Amino acid sequence: MSPLENRARIAITMGDPAGIGPEICLDILRECTLATPIVFGDAGLLARVAQHLGQTCDFPVLPWSRWEQGYDQCEGPTIVDVPLLNAAQVVPGTVHPDHGRAAFGYIQAAIDAALAGQVVAVSTAPINKEALALAGIRFPGHTEIFANRCGSTRWCMMQYSDLITCTFVTVHVGLVEVPALLSESRVLEVIELTAEALRRIRGHEPRLVVCGLNPHAGEHGLFGEREEERFIVPAIEKAKAVGLLVEGPLPGDTAFLPSKRATTDAFVCMYHDQGHIPVKALAFDRAVNTTIGLPMIRTSVDHGTAYDIAWQGKADPSSLHHAISLAIKLAS
Amino acid sequence: MSPLENRARIAITMGDPAGIGPEICLDILRECTLATPIVFGDAGLLARVAQHLGQTCDFPVLPWSRWEQGYDQCEGPTIVDVPLLNAAQVVPGTVHPDHGRAAFGYIQAAIDAALAGQVVAVSTAPINKEALALAGIRFPGHTEIFANRCGSTRWCMMQYSDLITCTFVTVHVGLVEVPALLSESRVLEVIELTAEALRRIRGHEPRLVVCGLNPHAGEHGLFGEREEERFIVPAIEKAKAVGLLVEGPLPGDTAFLPSKRATTDAFVCMYHDQGHIPVKALAFDRAVNTTIGLPMIRTSVDHGTAYDIAWQGKADPSSLHHAISLAIKLAS
Repeated sequence: MSPLENRARIAITMGDPAGIGPEICLDILRECTLATPIVFGDAGLLARVAQHLGQTCDFPVLPWSRWEQGYDQCEGPTIVDVPLLNAAQVVPGTVHPDHGRAAFGYIQAAIDAALAGQVVAVSTAPINKEALALAGIRFPGHTEIFANRCGSTRWCMMQYSDLITCTFVTVHVGLVEVPALLSESRVLEVIELTAEALRRIRGHEPRLVVCGLNPHAGEHGLFGEREEERFIVPAIEKAKAVGLLVEGPLPGDTAFLPSKRATTDAFVCMYHDQGHIPVKALAFDRAVNTTIGLPMIRTSVDHGTAYDIAWQGKADPSSLHHAISLAIKLAS
Repeated sequence: MSPLENRARIAITMGDPAGIGPEICLDILRECTLATPIVFGDAGLLARVAQHLGQTCDFPVLPWSRWEQGYDQCEGPTIVDVPLLNAAQVVPGTVHPDHGRAAFGYIQAAIDAALAGQVVAVSTAPINKEALALAGIRFPGHTEIFANRCGSTRWCMMQYSDLITCTFVTVHVGLVEVPALLSESRVLEVIELTAEALRRIRGHEPRLVVCGLNPHAGEHGLFGEREEERFIVPAIEKAKAVGLLVEGPLPGDTAFLPSKRATTDAFVCMYHDQGHIPVKALAFDRAVNTTIGLPMIRTSVDHGTAYDIAWQGKADPSSLHHAISLAIKLAS
């Protein structure tokens, strides 16, 4: 890493104020050496959490209202104070619409900074979707917030780790809705997005495995509505026709066998748990959530707000460090 | 293991003749020391496969028509010849209705022997469901064949290993059909069956985790049709009320985290891939498939017919050995 890259600014969103986001952001401000971390959140709350944990919090604070004028003078770890919260009233571990509204505001500010080229990437701490919903914000997750604010229509979620990487044709929808959301064009789009991202990360043409939808990938129509033959097989054929290294559809349970993992750069999954189950079972604290296809680099931790241990100094910041590391890799 | 148990007869079905079933059964006949293995299959085909692999096959052969009179004289590894096949015509690695019909016949014979108390358990080699379907036999798998022949209505599939064990509320159905098949009574039934089986295997009151159906277990109704609140939560409450150690519903992806696996005896899963993905990713060659709730012990290998390597001597028989080992454990 060159000295120039070392100074690249990366935005970190603080996440839900009542979760473990604030304390893992404090760790990033202290420890991150890959880039200049700029935490978009609440300066008063970060100071309160630091004090609560017996830590110091003497990082420069730049008010969001002065970001436009001041961002290029951020030469070290900085807190961008987005004033959406009464920090003294936050109770750790509680769901509250104010927390959802504030967490959403930090994300929006960070996206705007990234769209303006003022930071090279955004890495996000966990939010609470119920708090978001209570605040009237109808997004099921970070991925959709980013896609919406960036005006992107061609994107997908990726769970990346050095052990196993999955991308998703559908994500935050009920299981009952999944089959009707599949189409040849969407499956092909996710195959293409996956190949583009992995080519960039790995530096070679990636080998992809596409999972089926049904048990045993439908076993030639015995289970399900032939979604494999109708949507997945034609998408794989088109991807092969343009030279992509794609195999499938494989049954979900044989796709992730050790021997298959060893020869696969990424798995294209049809629904949330099909990929999240093996990623979390095999690479829990190393996996990074990223949205591919956006006009910016965006990565995220692979865990939730962990209300049960919030503000107790027990939270493991390593997933956020991994998220920043992948963001820098994708941005360079 | 006492000398008496050592002599207990266990039925092994040969599975699809064109797959790896015959060669792994030959291995069992040679190597199994846990019990007296009785292979229900085709004596001519087993001899042909043995010759093909340069092995001998000099085990006693008892025709199925003389089983009733002769079973109690089986004191060592024995082949029960169920004549449903022209052994000379079988081409390895091919799907054929004759193979499906024969494989089905071996299973029926073994079930009858178990129902009559002539063997202590049945362990099954893999079948091909397409071959079964071509023969007009409309069962999606072993589990359903056993339940039907035994007249059982209260049963479920279990994937057992020392690392991770899963049971299933639904199994061989298309993903689109899963939500409508859930009910409070079925979820409760599978929780109870799981507790009964694990209590027997582990010798203590088992700790169970029940998975949700939707991403993030529905996140309190944000995803899906509140299947968690409608069916899974009430079943868990009823199970707790009778003293079972049950936790959930947990999201599929956090249920199988290493820390949770360490404190859980078995996971109750809502659909096939929810449990098969982590079992095969984590314990592929150790997992045993068993049907619990039947009036007999029935276990099975955790792999398919592997047509691509059939009759080549490359097949790993360890899963069938594990299946026999679990069957003996459950039977004793």
